[in-house]
Amino acid sequence: MWHQQEIHLPELARGFHLITDEVVHALPCLSECSVGMLHLQLMHTSASLTLNENTDPDVRHDLDTFMRRLVPDGLDYFRHTLEGPDDMPAHVVASFLGTQLTLAVRDGRIALGTWQGIWLGEHRDQGGSRRILTTLNGCEALDL
Amino acid sequence: MWHQQEIHLPELARGFHLITDEVVHALPCLSECSVGMLHLQLMHTSASLTLNENTDPDVRHDLDTFMRRLVPDGLDYFRHTLEGPDDMPAHVVASFLGTQLTLAVRDGRIALGTWQGIWLGEHRDQGGSRRILTTLNGCEALDL
Amino acid sequence: MWHQQEIHLPELARGFHLITDEVVHALPCLSECSVGMLHLQLMHTSASLTLNENTDPDVRHDLDTFMRRLVPDGLDYFRHTLEGPDDMPAHVVASFLGTQLTLAVRDGRIALGTWQGIWLGEHRDQGGSRRILTTLNGCEALDL
Repeated sequence: MWHQQEIHLPELARGFHLITDEVVHALPCLSECSVGMLHLQLMHTSASLTLNENTDPDVRHDLDTFMRRLVPDGLDYFRHTLEGPDDMPAHVVASFLGTQLTLAVRDGRIALGTWQGIWLGEHRDQGGSRRILTTLNGCEALDL
Repeated sequence: MWHQQEIHLPELARGFHLITDEVVHALPCLSECSVGMLHLQLMHTSASLTLNENTDPDVRHDLDTFMRRLVPDGLDYFRHTLEGPDDMPAHVVASFLGTQLTLAVRDGRIALGTWQGIWLGEHRDQGGSRRILTTLNGCEALDL
Repeated sequence: MWHQQEIHLPELARGFHLITDEVVHALPCLSECSVGMLHLQLMHTSASLTLNENTDPDVRHDLDTFMRRLVPDGLDYFRHTLEGPDDMPAHVVASFLGTQLTLAVRDGRIALGTWQGIWLGEHRDQGGSRRILTTLNGCEALDL
């Protein structure tokens, strides 16, 4: 089975956001998939997708604080500054953390570890809404 | 063909470890796959999977040293400290390096470059055993 | 449908290079694929593949400048120095940015966002030519 669908996220504040539920709820067809791979591709270059801890919001806060110190806004040697001091740092972090993820699907669900969740990293002050293109490839139970 | 299986790794010391052989030996079904994709997903948020050099252990040492200096244990502005000074740095490095990999399969083998190997990064002092969920999708020779 | 093919890139200067066109032109079979996943695996450990901005060359310049400052050549605590002062930093950056990418395919094309392009990061002074193994899995229109 193949399924492809865009997910539209509302504008989110700069920082990291847990979006596992948004992804799962948008894809009821996951329940038909016994074994498969779910590919998520963020269609942007100043935000990111990563897997990390799914419970304590401090983990999301701390990663954001770390990244802002590692790649501060308005570094004086950046040339790509036309879109504001937060833009080039957002491109850097997008490549550090990545903008696409492939996740295993098992028994009709995304196969996440106990503490794993899907994070959207918004790295601009006003990034606007974000789109994720999801592609599911798998087999239904009878195909095994 | 679809195949899905967990690999259990014993507890490893903090640092990077070459696990190509462990992955290959756990998956004899690779030999039936002419062309495919092998997805590896670490079910944890304080360890990582990455492709890097497969011969000189100094490369693994140097990357670990670099990461420990970049993200030192016990940074004073981290809030997520309940699980110890090595925990939040482990979450940071897990997102930097990633916890999932997709690898090409060709002629019954994982298609690695001459110098490429699969590394597990253990980023906690006592991370315990680690699980990798492997998902293989491919076609056998006759399907081509 | 499955298709697997190597792409050979000529030697490129240290820094980031937009290679979307090289990938697309090497894979005319993309046009037959209605929905799918395209996997790109760089067969090297001192270069990288990442998705980022496809228009302003300053973005590529700035990311390269940032990475060279973050991981300077010839760090005194690196042990893996036999291949030159640029070698170990190249291994570090390769793991930071990654050496494999999975991209969605939609309606016969790689499904990139408006501003997304495929970048090759060459992290050695003289890295030589580079090989990318591409693996396409998808379905043709009639299979949907």
